[in-house]
Amino acid sequence: MAAAAANCIFCKIIRKEIPSLKLLETEKVYAFLDIGPLSEGHALVIPKHHGEFLHDIPADSLAEILPATKQVVEALRKGTGMTDYNILQNNGKAAHQFVPHVHFHIIPRRGSDGLGVGWDIKSYDKAKMAEIHEKVLAHL
Amino acid sequence: MAAAAANCIFCKIIRKEIPSLKLLETEKVYAFLDIGPLSEGHALVIPKHHGEFLHDIPADSLAEILPATKQVVEALRKGTGMTDYNILQNNGKAAHQFVPHVHFHIIPRRGSDGLGVGWDIKSYDKAKMAEIHEKVLAHL
Repeated sequence: MAAAAANCIFCKIIRKEIPSLKLLETEKVYAFLDIGPLSEGHALVIPKHHGEFLHDIPADSLAEILPATKQVVEALRKGTGMTDYNILQNNGKAAHQFVPHVHFHIIPRRGSDGLGVGWDIKSYDKAKMAEIHEKVLAHL
Repeated sequence: MAAAAANCIFCKIIRKEIPSLKLLETEKVYAFLDIGPLSEGHALVIPKHHGEFLHDIPADSLAEILPATKQVVEALRKGTGMTDYNILQNNGKAAHQFVPHVHFHIIPRRGSDGLGVGWDIKSYDKAKMAEIHEKVLAHL
């Protein structure tokens, strides 16, 4: 049995205590339309296992998320004519996370609809990059 | 053998024809530091299977991506003190995709560093939502 939280809104949706426009349910994953959509067809794919951050979710649950996401994407393409889309998953308040249960957004893009993406690339410092690489690699 | 493209920059990185600050390699996945980082430690996790969109990637490759992403996230947390982060994967030009080979960004967030997220929620129209739900559900 996956970990669940009594007062988590997404756990309540999974337990059907709160209604949702459900799209898909597998052993470890649940998908539904976002009630606060950025664009038509904006959907969420979540692990049934409760956890706030991606790194809190067991690997076997994580493994089911993207294959399920692909299924929802294919249905959005066929059902709504979606072509372009963002997959976004936010971890922590600084990363724009509001509900503390891991959720992957599928956000269809049509013209100016959907996610606003700001892309401010930092200057590339070769020595700094090598230093970061070494620090991270030490834990892999 | 996974599909590969002769002139794809990420396929060249996977084949080691172009150097990269590699972090992780599994049977179906490759991870490295982004050369155009939005913040320190900005990393990419990609399937070895070449495909432009998420829905072009076979499920068995997709299944390996998030467990590998979790490993890189844990190393970024330990190695750089990262706490908050975005996972972002863009599909198509309208969704801000530049390299036409599926790639998952891990973007650490520190203060104003990292991804700019615009979140312009559309008004909720119950009938419209039900219509979209029905259209998508027909393909699931």
